[in-house]
Amino acid sequence: MPLNPSRTVDELRELRELTGDENGAQRVAWTETWKRAQEWMSSKVEGTGAVASFDAAGNQWWTLRGASERALILGGHLDSVPNGGWLDGCLNVIAGSEVLRRIAEEGEPPLTVRLVSWADEEGARFGRSLFGSSAAAGSMADQDELRALTDAHGVSLPAAIGAFDVDLDSALDARSELENAAAYLELHIEQGPVLESMDLPLGAVLGTFGVERHRITWRGQAAHAGSTPMDKRRDALAGAAKLALELRQIAASVGDGAVMTSGGVVTKPGIVTSVVETAEQLLDMRHLDADKLGEMHRQAREATERFAEEENIEVEWERIWQIEPILFELAELAEEAVREVAGTSHRLPSGPLHDAAEVSRAGVPTAMLFVQSLRGLSHTKLEDTKPEHIELAVQALDRLATKTLGRFAK
Amino acid sequence: MPLNPSRTVDELRELRELTGDENGAQRVAWTETWKRAQEWMSSKVEGTGAVASFDAAGNQWWTLRGASERALILGGHLDSVPNGGWLDGCLNVIAGSEVLRRIAEEGEPPLTVRLVSWADEEGARFGRSLFGSSAAAGSMADQDELRALTDAHGVSLPAAIGAFDVDLDSALDARSELENAAAYLELHIEQGPVLESMDLPLGAVLGTFGVERHRITWRGQAAHAGSTPMDKRRDALAGAAKLALELRQIAASVGDGAVMTSGGVVTKPGIVTSVVETAEQLLDMRHLDADKLGEMHRQAREATERFAEEENIEVEWERIWQIEPILFELAELAEEAVREVAGTSHRLPSGPLHDAAEVSRAGVPTAMLFVQSLRGLSHTKLEDTKPEHIELAVQALDRLATKTLGRFAK
Repeated sequence: MPLNPSRTVDELRELRELTGDENGAQRVAWTETWKRAQEWMSSKVEGTGAVASFDAAGNQWWTLRGASERALILGGHLDSVPNGGWLDGCLNVIAGSEVLRRIAEEGEPPLTVRLVSWADEEGARFGRSLFGSSAAAGSMADQDELRALTDAHGVSLPAAIGAFDVDLDSALDARSELENAAAYLELHIEQGPVLESMDLPLGAVLGTFGVERHRITWRGQAAHAGSTPMDKRRDALAGAAKLALELRQIAASVGDGAVMTSGGVVTKPGIVTSVVETAEQLLDMRHLDADKLGEMHRQAREATERFAEEENIEVEWERIWQIEPILFELAELAEEAVREVAGTSHRLPSGPLHDAAEVSRAGVPTAMLFVQSLRGLSHTKLEDTKPEHIELAVQALDRLATKTLGRFAK
Repeated sequence: MPLNPSRTVDELRELRELTGDENGAQRVAWTETWKRAQEWMSSKVEGTGAVASFDAAGNQWWTLRGASERALILGGHLDSVPNGGWLDGCLNVIAGSEVLRRIAEEGEPPLTVRLVSWADEEGARFGRSLFGSSAAAGSMADQDELRALTDAHGVSLPAAIGAFDVDLDSALDARSELENAAAYLELHIEQGPVLESMDLPLGAVLGTFGVERHRITWRGQAAHAGSTPMDKRRDALAGAAKLALELRQIAASVGDGAVMTSGGVVTKPGIVTSVVETAEQLLDMRHLDADKLGEMHRQAREATERFAEEENIEVEWERIWQIEPILFELAELAEEAVREVAGTSHRLPSGPLHDAAEVSRAGVPTAMLFVQSLRGLSHTKLEDTKPEHIELAVQALDRLATKTLGRFAK
């Protein structure tokens, strides 16, 4: 049977029924629902001849042996955020299984072809994203921090992953899975509004933004809302408010797609009768150019120092996480595939991180495709993509796989 | 024996030992510790000839019969917030008992003199302040809401007050206590920085600010921090940030002591990877002049409409609470007493609400004295006032009582 892109749409709907509820997808990693999705996925790959396995980090693999041990890898993730969408993550795995099936039916491929569902891409339960792919890429270096993480119900990360036979001390053994990797391909919904605003179904991803992620703590003085004159206040919220607004100026001055987000502020004591004593502000900054990302970081720091002085409050920065920009080596192959399937291509950076970034960091030539997201929404049950665009995306992934096999089989 | 102001300082320390711990005062209303404070207080008034009683709202009274049934009332509250200070509330009751003792020793006063410890001024356990005084003033009108309140451990307000023989249906019977009231006097720590900044021990309170208290909800659109270009965002935090900063301009334009506070912002989803979809912002506005308070409210509303339009987000106002400004009829008597005791007086509004406001609303001529708070702190174990200032405050309250008896005995 030839490639059947409409089957991917059907299977996505089937998985939605099986693992979602009225609030959306519930395939949070290290839960029973996620396990159900894994078993369902294995049943779909059965019959292709691909051999199923789990690695030391909980990543689920299906391996179709080819003429060479060198492997073309197609990857995604079955896990979702709570109340998530029907596409984020699982589109990649289901579309990849369709491509795997098509290749398998044509006889032994020139390279081994592998499909992987990375474990815990979202980090929804413990706050650590890209768990499985970072282990496989060898870039997981925070085992001690991971050991101390607990979920909202007090269950520790080691206990939760232990139920899936994963152990932090041996998780890095998953590195062996990438030893024979020739190339890595990933298809994902855009999770942004760019393709929709350009009326394009598909895009070729240049790379993933570098990210600087910080917690900024402003400290003033709690004071009674009624008895403290305006000029005697040291209001921590004022610092956070000024920074939230200043981000736009900084991003505009740096340009070239710079994005800066203050995703949340926690105020303490946070009561109506008191000036805010402490404001903890989350800051996320992204750029595809490392120098420009550094410039955003520098300007933001300078701004907070200035605001702290103006408001007679204190400010403290704590880096939560950072990653360098990653450029995808096979972006031009992705662009060819998109152009052949959709007529027009568009190159764009990925704002969100993806497992593809981890794999690329590990030195594996990588390409990534985006399919249009309606209203740019993701991580919500409102996440959606037109079925005809999903079908085009499966075709583009298939064509990209063929091109990649062609290049690396030489 | 003449008035002994230093005894008040000693008794305050005694009560601190009896009902506090290393975190501060623990005399939360409707608890065993509060009951212990009530019993201790009664032991201190014993021997003055004043008769102890509780009214239908749980207020504790001591009544010294005078030549007339018309009564001069001295009032405060023994209850505190959890981890509270050693002065807020109980200073008034203990200083009042010293004045009562002095009057009792001089023989039958021209008016009946009553001391009252109002029940649950702080509202710390159920979030409803001024419980006892609003019942006595006849302004308690939220019985049905009160019936539904529960504390952090799920105990209902009716059950908690029932343990003190108080019933919501009959609490308003406490109104009879104010029927013969000629005047009401209250001494309180300032809970603000004004007297300290002027280096004055005492102040005469003009009245309590009117208060407008609102919850403002800004609604934008959650969007991925990495994939959503800056110009395509609908960031709810931007509305809250603009308002937090605009409050200063509005308060300055209205002037005359206007205070406006954004005491907290709650952001949702509140995660580092998403533009803020919803920001719930608390707003408290206070002024001694009702028209100016109205002007502040109007300007704040206009500003939020403007910000919502600028940011392409929605804004919704919900009034949490309001109270009109209340002017104390006997403020000039309070000023005379302060001037005689301390040499200089200063008239100032009260930002925080007090039981005195409820009594004044009920039509009883009222005066209130403030004594300096160190660093303006209250509702914390760091709350403090110099002992020599406490002694001056007892003298001023005593002198004010004499002046008031003189005026109303005529």
